[in-house]
Amino acid sequence: MTTEQLDTLAAPEPEVIDHETRATDDDHEALRVWLRLLTCTNTVESRLRNLLRTGFDSTLPRFDMMAQLDRNPDGLKMRELSRRLMVTGGNVTGLTDKLVEEGLVERRDDPRDRRAYSVHLTPAGKRAFKQMAKSHEGWVIELFSGLSHQEKTQLLELLNRLKRHLAQVDPNLS
Amino acid sequence: MTTEQLDTLAAPEPEVIDHETRATDDDHEALRVWLRLLTCTNTVESRLRNLLRTGFDSTLPRFDMMAQLDRNPDGLKMRELSRRLMVTGGNVTGLTDKLVEEGLVERRDDPRDRRAYSVHLTPAGKRAFKQMAKSHEGWVIELFSGLSHQEKTQLLELLNRLKRHLAQVDPNLS
Repeated sequence: MTTEQLDTLAAPEPEVIDHETRATDDDHEALRVWLRLLTCTNTVESRLRNLLRTGFDSTLPRFDMMAQLDRNPDGLKMRELSRRLMVTGGNVTGLTDKLVEEGLVERRDDPRDRRAYSVHLTPAGKRAFKQMAKSHEGWVIELFSGLSHQEKTQLLELLNRLKRHLAQVDPNLS
Repeated sequence: MTTEQLDTLAAPEPEVIDHETRATDDDHEALRVWLRLLTCTNTVESRLRNLLRTGFDSTLPRFDMMAQLDRNPDGLKMRELSRRLMVTGGNVTGLTDKLVEEGLVERRDDPRDRRAYSVHLTPAGKRAFKQMAKSHEGWVIELFSGLSHQEKTQLLELLNRLKRHLAQVDPNLS
């Protein structure tokens, strides 16, 4: 594929102005891939954020946290939750406080460590999450329905390769 | 490709705990693609954030804003900047104030509209951005070097298809 063809592929829709508008024609291919990855992720994320808000008066961090707790019925320590949600400990604490107030999440003492506790979904939290997760999955299916099954498999494989490489790259590059 | 093979591909590295750990085996393929897209973007973004901080004592929003201004030598109105950076007007104002203080950016009055002004890079801002952009491009090349040229082209095409589809999807789905 020639540079011209690549440029045509990479050209943003006329009315779409976003991260990709910063890529100039002679930018390196990796940069184009990165900016497009960023644009797609931001677009999907912002769609899901709006849908969660209008559909469930909820937010993405709340949804992510409940998803993690749903997958871990034995509960998660705060440190674990932070790590999995890639957010700061402070954010997770505030989020937990709110969800506890609403009766969706509960803290349980750790019998082996008096200073530690784990966080769990309550039965009401499980029900609420189940409903949200069903809608969320439907939205994601719809948002990605522009890709065929084969294209989704291909994308998954390419992203997997990228992910494995990222895990090996020296964080300081230099 | 069988479900088992997909699961193997999708399985996170043993020590990596992130968004994807919330995907269960029977989750829909679209959900797997979305979570992997999110993980890859978050990982690259966090690498770049750290590299900008340690290398230039800078941040991603600063870099993005300077990149947009560098691509628009005639300057950008605040509203334009906000739209391009996908952040709130408030954030762009704070960012602009800081960069003006540091002499990297300047506000210029619009001769046709007394209440409006546009934002421009100063010569010092242009020099600073050029240096950062060179390093940034090198980092991105390195981070994506796990993919061959052909794989990058493939990824670019798939993401382009996704982006076009996202632009057409009804925001309310329902």
